[in-house]
Amino acid sequence: MIIDCHGHFTTVPASFRAWRASQVEFANDPANAPSRDGAHVSDDQIRDAIENGQLKLQRERGSDLTLFSPIAGLMSHHLGNERTSLEWAEVSNDLVYRVTEMYADNFAPVCQLPQSPGAAPANSVAELRRCVEQLGFVGCNLNPDPSGGYWTGKPVTDREWYPLYEALVDLDVPAMIHVAASCNPCFHGTGAHYLNADTSVFMQILQSDLFKDFPTLRLVIPHGGGAVPYHWGRYRGMSLEMRERPLERLLDNIFFDSCVYHQPGVELLTKVIPSDNVLFGSEMIGAVRGKDPLTGQYFDDTRQYIDGCAALSDNDRYKLFEGNARRVYPRLEARLKARGR
Amino acid sequence: MIIDCHGHFTTVPASFRAWRASQVEFANDPANAPSRDGAHVSDDQIRDAIENGQLKLQRERGSDLTLFSPIAGLMSHHLGNERTSLEWAEVSNDLVYRVTEMYADNFAPVCQLPQSPGAAPANSVAELRRCVEQLGFVGCNLNPDPSGGYWTGKPVTDREWYPLYEALVDLDVPAMIHVAASCNPCFHGTGAHYLNADTSVFMQILQSDLFKDFPTLRLVIPHGGGAVPYHWGRYRGMSLEMRERPLERLLDNIFFDSCVYHQPGVELLTKVIPSDNVLFGSEMIGAVRGKDPLTGQYFDDTRQYIDGCAALSDNDRYKLFEGNARRVYPRLEARLKARGR
Repeated sequence: MIIDCHGHFTTVPASFRAWRASQVEFANDPANAPSRDGAHVSDDQIRDAIENGQLKLQRERGSDLTLFSPIAGLMSHHLGNERTSLEWAEVSNDLVYRVTEMYADNFAPVCQLPQSPGAAPANSVAELRRCVEQLGFVGCNLNPDPSGGYWTGKPVTDREWYPLYEALVDLDVPAMIHVAASCNPCFHGTGAHYLNADTSVFMQILQSDLFKDFPTLRLVIPHGGGAVPYHWGRYRGMSLEMRERPLERLLDNIFFDSCVYHQPGVELLTKVIPSDNVLFGSEMIGAVRGKDPLTGQYFDDTRQYIDGCAALSDNDRYKLFEGNARRVYPRLEARLKARGR
Repeated sequence: MIIDCHGHFTTVPASFRAWRASQVEFANDPANAPSRDGAHVSDDQIRDAIENGQLKLQRERGSDLTLFSPIAGLMSHHLGNERTSLEWAEVSNDLVYRVTEMYADNFAPVCQLPQSPGAAPANSVAELRRCVEQLGFVGCNLNPDPSGGYWTGKPVTDREWYPLYEALVDLDVPAMIHVAASCNPCFHGTGAHYLNADTSVFMQILQSDLFKDFPTLRLVIPHGGGAVPYHWGRYRGMSLEMRERPLERLLDNIFFDSCVYHQPGVELLTKVIPSDNVLFGSEMIGAVRGKDPLTGQYFDDTRQYIDGCAALSDNDRYKLFEGNARRVYPRLEARLKARGR
């Protein structure tokens, strides 16, 4: 089977986005804030959004199951405050949960955390536990920059993050490192901020002893790892020079998705990064929605690029498409097994 | 001949760095600030630094001439104020000028600008003109984030930058987009901030009409373009979607250096980016100074990777190593011609 490790519910009805806008508007005026009922999305609306969106493309492109989380851009932890971030995380996660219950064969849930600039990452643990323990979520998205593009917080290797990692390890779920929208005009969201975050967090980790402290913590760096695999030699050299540690030692804990939207990029990724460390992902429907006029294919139909990598063995392909996701997300494996898959 | 488009005077004597530290310390206490004489570096010190550093490696690795500029990390436009930034630019550029006069066959000068957070980019024009018109500099380094990693300024496509571009066009010199040190703990300088800046500025330009306004402006994006060539499909898709403009149209004005420190990265770069748009560069002695234990070669000896790209024709190699630099830097071409090269 083909598991897409990276999908967001980007096709939510307009009313859901409007509720969020209103919630933010009245963040400091709770008496006049919209009630949570207003965020309700009907089953029909879900069916409409999913069946004409992600499910349709899943079928057309031949993938089987998507790890599905709330819209990353809309997490916007920099808006509102810690209370509204928690409410928005709950509402968004509950909606994703309903999708994954209605289409349990096609989607497995990954949660958003209720982060907020300056708030202790420990404060995200309760919502993480609710999602994983009560609702069967298999992973979470961790925003390394709740300030939305100004990076005013601490690196993800700072000890303030450790309570969250303790929970991840305890629950045995991985985190995908994924920023939200950028409110910094220097950084376009999906064209710069996303890739910069992937690159920056990898480097933060390279500088640290994070995995000495958390030997079983697993982090997925999306968008093909930002600039990292392309600059693998730079990082190999820096790791040896700064830490006297071969870079490859990070690969017990770090994984990259395959959200790279052209053939040469995916070839580089699969050549440089061992096949145990790449998870198939497309992030559809997401940053790039059009078709390549040169090929007539969707840019974000990343399966075509992996199919086109002649150097991959059948076993490599099994790992990329299925095996690695089952290993990195043990609760996904349990969920699939429970359904006889 | 082999022209390395990207080198900094990273081997300056310790006294020069110490002078800068003192200058910054007394930035707001000019009466007690160190006199400019204190920044003096003797001819012997220059010979020692260059002959045991960049010149030695140039000879060992078989390159002929390096476009040489002040240390990027030490530009640190976020320190001090506009006055100290100007003084530091003058002192640094004058030192680079002396190197390129003493070793005119091996180095051609590229200047640092006296940028400062919040200062109008127009204020950098006078120093740019002094360097180019009076001292024969062939290009400049433009810092797109004088705040040093907080990106509190405006995108490089904002009209506040236009007076600087008018001067670049008038002088017919290109700018390399190059940040300085990062004072943001989330961004390691050479491991994150540099690559993020390359990626972010490319995206700023993609979103803009900069080259409609400046059809002959030429910008060199270093470090192999950050994440850009690796994500070329993403940018092709975004350019079509956001601007209805093929991404390739930016290639009349944008060039990438080859500072990518492993074979697969340089193969991707030279496969994805047309050979008219890649300039040989190594940034030695710079971010990665060690040898790859797998090959015994220096990571930043980028010539080996280009030599190893079997798909490149002799004409491609001529462009990468020499022709493109002569074309993108007309004042380098004139300088070489004047010396019969």
